[in-house]
Amino acid sequence: MATLSDIGVSALINILTAFAFLLAFAVLRIQPVNDRVYLPKWYINGGRSSPRSGGNFVAKFVNLDFKTYLTFLNWMPQALKMSESELINHAGLDSAIFLRIYSLGCFLSYGFKIFVPITVVALFILIPVNVSSGTLFFLRKELVVSDIDKLSISNVPPVQFFVHIGLEYLFTIWICYMLYKEYDNVATMRLRFLASQRRRAEQFTVVVRNVPQISGHSVSDSLDQFFKTNHPDTYLCHQAVYNANKFAKLVRKRDRLQNWLDYNQLKFERHSEKRPTKKTGFLGLWGKRVDSIDFYKQQIKEFDKNMALERQKVLKDTKSILPVAFVSFKSRWGAAVCAQTQQSKNPTLWLTNWAPEPRDIYWQNLAIPFLSLTIRKLIISLSVFALVFFYMIPITFVQSLANLEGLERVAPFLRPFIKSFLQGFLPGLALKILLYILPTILMIMSKIEGHIALSTPERRASAKYYYFMLVNVFLGSIVTGTAFEQLHSFLHQSPTQIPRTIGVSIPMKATFFITYIMVDGWAGIAGEILRLKPLVIFHLKNMFMVKSERDREQAMDPGSVDYPETLPSLQLYFLLGIVYAVVTPILLPFILNFFAFAYLVYRHQIINVYNQQYESGAAFWPHVHSRIIASLVISQLLLLGLLNTKEAANSTPLLAILPILTLSFNQYCKHRFEPAFRRYPLEEAMKKDIMDQTTEPDVNLTTFLADAYLHPIFRSFEEEELEEVRVDKVRVDKNQSYGDNAQSQTSDDHSSPSPPHHPTTSAPQDVYHHGFPPQYAYNFSSPTHYGYHYEAEPGNSRD
Amino acid sequence: MATLSDIGVSALINILTAFAFLLAFAVLRIQPVNDRVYLPKWYINGGRSSPRSGGNFVAKFVNLDFKTYLTFLNWMPQALKMSESELINHAGLDSAIFLRIYSLGCFLSYGFKIFVPITVVALFILIPVNVSSGTLFFLRKELVVSDIDKLSISNVPPVQFFVHIGLEYLFTIWICYMLYKEYDNVATMRLRFLASQRRRAEQFTVVVRNVPQISGHSVSDSLDQFFKTNHPDTYLCHQAVYNANKFAKLVRKRDRLQNWLDYNQLKFERHSEKRPTKKTGFLGLWGKRVDSIDFYKQQIKEFDKNMALERQKVLKDTKSILPVAFVSFKSRWGAAVCAQTQQSKNPTLWLTNWAPEPRDIYWQNLAIPFLSLTIRKLIISLSVFALVFFYMIPITFVQSLANLEGLERVAPFLRPFIKSFLQGFLPGLALKILLYILPTILMIMSKIEGHIALSTPERRASAKYYYFMLVNVFLGSIVTGTAFEQLHSFLHQSPTQIPRTIGVSIPMKATFFITYIMVDGWAGIAGEILRLKPLVIFHLKNMFMVKSERDREQAMDPGSVDYPETLPSLQLYFLLGIVYAVVTPILLPFILNFFAFAYLVYRHQIINVYNQQYESGAAFWPHVHSRIIASLVISQLLLLGLLNTKEAANSTPLLAILPILTLSFNQYCKHRFEPAFRRYPLEEAMKKDIMDQTTEPDVNLTTFLADAYLHPIFRSFEEEELEEVRVDKVRVDKNQSYGDNAQSQTSDDHSSPSPPHHPTTSAPQDVYHHGFPPQYAYNFSSPTHYGYHYEAEPGNSRD
Repeated sequence: MATLSDIGVSALINILTAFAFLLAFAVLRIQPVNDRVYLPKWYINGGRSSPRSGGNFVAKFVNLDFKTYLTFLNWMPQALKMSESELINHAGLDSAIFLRIYSLGCFLSYGFKIFVPITVVALFILIPVNVSSGTLFFLRKELVVSDIDKLSISNVPPVQFFVHIGLEYLFTIWICYMLYKEYDNVATMRLRFLASQRRRAEQFTVVVRNVPQISGHSVSDSLDQFFKTNHPDTYLCHQAVYNANKFAKLVRKRDRLQNWLDYNQLKFERHSEKRPTKKTGFLGLWGKRVDSIDFYKQQIKEFDKNMALERQKVLKDTKSILPVAFVSFKSRWGAAVCAQTQQSKNPTLWLTNWAPEPRDIYWQNLAIPFLSLTIRKLIISLSVFALVFFYMIPITFVQSLANLEGLERVAPFLRPFIKSFLQGFLPGLALKILLYILPTILMIMSKIEGHIALSTPERRASAKYYYFMLVNVFLGSIVTGTAFEQLHSFLHQSPTQIPRTIGVSIPMKATFFITYIMVDGWAGIAGEILRLKPLVIFHLKNMFMVKSERDREQAMDPGSVDYPETLPSLQLYFLLGIVYAVVTPILLPFILNFFAFAYLVYRHQIINVYNQQYESGAAFWPHVHSRIIASLVISQLLLLGLLNTKEAANSTPLLAILPILTLSFNQYCKHRFEPAFRRYPLEEAMKKDIMDQTTEPDVNLTTFLADAYLHPIFRSFEEEELEEVRVDKVRVDKNQSYGDNAQSQTSDDHSSPSPPHHPTTSAPQDVYHHGFPPQYAYNFSSPTHYGYHYEAEPGNSRD
Repeated sequence: MATLSDIGVSALINILTAFAFLLAFAVLRIQPVNDRVYLPKWYINGGRSSPRSGGNFVAKFVNLDFKTYLTFLNWMPQALKMSESELINHAGLDSAIFLRIYSLGCFLSYGFKIFVPITVVALFILIPVNVSSGTLFFLRKELVVSDIDKLSISNVPPVQFFVHIGLEYLFTIWICYMLYKEYDNVATMRLRFLASQRRRAEQFTVVVRNVPQISGHSVSDSLDQFFKTNHPDTYLCHQAVYNANKFAKLVRKRDRLQNWLDYNQLKFERHSEKRPTKKTGFLGLWGKRVDSIDFYKQQIKEFDKNMALERQKVLKDTKSILPVAFVSFKSRWGAAVCAQTQQSKNPTLWLTNWAPEPRDIYWQNLAIPFLSLTIRKLIISLSVFALVFFYMIPITFVQSLANLEGLERVAPFLRPFIKSFLQGFLPGLALKILLYILPTILMIMSKIEGHIALSTPERRASAKYYYFMLVNVFLGSIVTGTAFEQLHSFLHQSPTQIPRTIGVSIPMKATFFITYIMVDGWAGIAGEILRLKPLVIFHLKNMFMVKSERDREQAMDPGSVDYPETLPSLQLYFLLGIVYAVVTPILLPFILNFFAFAYLVYRHQIINVYNQQYESGAAFWPHVHSRIIASLVISQLLLLGLLNTKEAANSTPLLAILPILTLSFNQYCKHRFEPAFRRYPLEEAMKKDIMDQTTEPDVNLTTFLADAYLHPIFRSFEEEELEEVRVDKVRVDKNQSYGDNAQSQTSDDHSSPSPPHHPTTSAPQDVYHHGFPPQYAYNFSSPTHYGYHYEAEPGNSRD
């Protein structure tokens, strides 16, 4: 129950923190030595190759031009300069749509969106109503009522609730209208984006899972036979998938050794008087001391031998061919047909789906059988439920330790220390650790679900994180107690009692959420722009590891938009804004401030820093949409509960219709727009096919598709071996397999024969975490991989 | 709280009733005069043309062969004689699968199914456990406990509940196993059935809705352009749909006049001394008296003129062409591709679906736009909710009238009469009327939802009726009070309290349900075989209306399986059986008896009486499956609630896992089998296409498909006009449009030029109720329309 002055103090502190961060950023940003930390995107894009600075030595590291210090906030207008279509070309559609969500919350760039009119209306209508009818003034002695409460619904007599109900209707209609328009926009942008993409392997390719194993036939033969029969006019070729998980592990280990070798060689170069040595035992702590460089070279040699053996084994053994394949078609139309239809009368066989981008494939998950997928999903959803509702139990346990009086009695001499440690520090630490590892846990869980694209687990983890936030942050803050206690009490309350219980506490918690927004949304976002962690790591690496310009590029960690964390917290802000719009409108300016500030910061980061990992074509939008709808429904139910306790029960039927209407609106939107995110319409496919035929009639698709979906490990093969694999599996015309223009369009350096070389391109780092080091996984990616020409208003070739 | 002897008396009464019905049936059945009532299917099938009887006059009407009276139950073994594949040939797949549901309940024909082993296990294990541990014996004075309760779970101390929990697990696993096997069977049968069908128009045709209206282009042009572009290799032709609802109304009225004319002409033939007359005023009560035959002839002439005008208007006016069309393809593969894919980037335009059978189309619903469909569905689901939960309110209101003491005081002279009428008769009458019209209401609601096939509303109505039964019969009987009161109390109880409230009453209500099963399931089913209503109506028609053999055929009303009513009540029996299997196993033999008896009766009716209205290929099976799963989950939750009150709360976690496992099993089955009911796999389509090409390589598909989907009103056109329509819309090769073999395969007499003639074929009666009299709607149907060759074990042409 904070008073207005408490809020003021808190606001002051947070604003000062935010300003301190911004100031630090402004100073650090213009130092040439930090250039690669704050502008990595431009290096990756090829727009920048070294810091622009004056000639002398000091100026290479420190900015001496004092004029630039005066305009320390000039990144803000710069961030707004780039137009949306430029932004899409620069950083991909995902990033542009991600920013649109923020602008949906505030008013920048795209005109007035959701919250600006709501804030204005709510502040000008509700606060006078709430203040004027001061019923709570007289209850002050009995109830502890804060100043904020005076501005909220707690202060209103029953009759005037109709103002609130009316506004709830108004806001719902407004938000739904905006969501509809936005969904329409995003769907159009997505289709335009897809239409403007250059020819890419995934447009022609379908991933086929659960290919039945017929004895006497190889998987390749069954595939050829099946698709030649059932897609005779469009089937082109296919690419088998090998179970090379073991080999990938070897590759990973060898890469680690290579890193050590590099490190030691660098060390030797710098201090050439002394060859580095190491002990051969566990962690280098004991054992015989040997020359490090020789040791690692020897080890790598052995690994190369083993890997060659393993590679041969994978290739020779028919058992290592998985019942999965990438099937390519002669046209986008053929692939669209195959991806959307059921192939076999047994619907668990010959499962077809659009193939993800080659760099987006999660190779390990390709081999999971159908039944196992069902079981995995069940287990994971049970675990998520447990995680969400029992996550706080360990913390409660730690907290209960603080009250162990028995412990005190047993060891009275430890008392002062133990008490302060147990009560003050341990629970907080436990909570911090648990919250810190939560996103990782959720990502691991999502990966176990068995998705074949690397980008899918991100969306799934985002959903799980949202549930966690909803239960543990939103509900957990309103109804105090752990989520488990809530669950218990909810199970023993009637369904009509639950919104009432929560609804009543909502106005009381407004001050808490205002503080939350300021800490997490203002200071936190300002911290994001400072990039303290990458800054420190970059300079450390720069000091110890970097020997060449290419290594410096490696050390640069641009990062990317962290969708699994940012999307759910964004949705939490929407929830807060929508719930409090009618109840305590004074919260709205804080939310608005968050959206505007976060929009600016993320726009700056996306333009200058982040490097896009993959392009999903705004695949996350339907989730964002449906979660804003969920927020609306939650707000309506809570208002219903709140008014029920306020002796305004007559209004129940009026408000009860609203959730039903909102949900039907959602249903309508789902029908209307969602297919644009799930399926590729034949009309579009055909249009692009025809366009291709007229512009480039003699492209050889076979060579273009030949090894787009070759398992990354074969990228490291000798020329000869590769040829062998291809002839064996892909049926490529040998004479054409290298050097023609179609080939060079997707892969510029993958035919290079020597395996361990560092990519010079903008290789995304994602796969690296999941199995394959960059030199194996990404040789085939190229700077033009995102290349497409985005037309702001494409000519509609058919009327 | 009935005792065992009460149950005995009730059983005796019901068995006697059932036997009386069976006896009456046995006697009536063998009278030649009733032949068309009890064996209409054979007349329709062409297997019978007149009753087989001796020569003399009396023997034509009454069976004088007294030997046949002795074997009055011989229809039972006869009903079992026909094998399943014969049955499918004889009455369609729907009927065969419908019977399989009954046999799933008992043990006939297909080996031991769900309930036989359950009954045996439950009776031999549970009843000894329940009886031996007679804790309730000592409470007898306080509680009124019936003998039945002694055999139920009420009588068991906490420890032994683990027997019940173990059995619940065992039964769940058994039922799931049986359901899995059965789903597999049904899916295989469906695919085999579809594969064995002859060439039919709907295999090549897709219905396209929401064709966009482009100014300057006709719908036909847009269609041609769109499909020629996007399905260039497979598109064949299309058939526009006219908005002829007004014309259809005229046709209906004209048909009614024709009936009156026929009636009057017949009357005049019989009593030729006096020409029938009628008054022209309202209902023939006043006005000028005129000669009836002349009057109707005149009226019909006028109608014909009006109809010709209206017909011209429909044809000429481009506005009467709806944005809907039937698009036909050169191959089944092409149609399967088009039906399963998204065509346009706006997912509300160019919506494609498999076309229903031509006779199954609901022409009026074809023109409903997308938005209206969403709204309709929302309104209907709200209405169903209201109907289910507030259906009993009018009855409660009528009942409350009975207690109006004020009324008595106002009019004391009416007292004895009013009291007995209000209290004894009115509420019962109101309930009966409401229950009688319920299926009709549900059918109307389902039709408003806007389905384009006539068979879909039947399935939808069946779902609605199931919810009604579940809430009003099952829950309504267990928790006394109206559904509205239940809803109210459920909203104010905690979610864990609800199964407890219901669970506790379950054992007490076993006797009620035993009585219910005997009345509804034994005597009711015996009433079904007697066909009292069709018997009476047939003889009335025979007396007053029939003038020729063809009319007699018309008077015959074979009826059909009434899916919207029988499926839900069947599912109610499954629910009762599953819920009581563990709680009061003594109920199981009654259920078993019902399944066996109903199986016999319906098998007899399907073989001898019912005429199939449409063939959905067992489309109702997924619903049956998921509702049996729902019954399982309900039984598990209720047992959980019951045990919770029994101080066996420790067992909660053990039982709580079961619903989750059951639901995941359902999810798995959905993935595994449901696509077989929703989509047509490309593999199957291609197989049939190839088979066709080899067996009949020179069939002209264009003529075959030319007017399969012609709007029924154009069936009545003069030859010339029809030709005109075709050339205009369907682009048929004129020289081939009549008389070739492909044509005669689906339509044998539709080119007959004179409109008002009665069909001589087995025209199904369904469309007749919804818009078009038989002579307009069904000239194109033919006895071979169901024709296909069903192979018991088709040779798999590919290994």
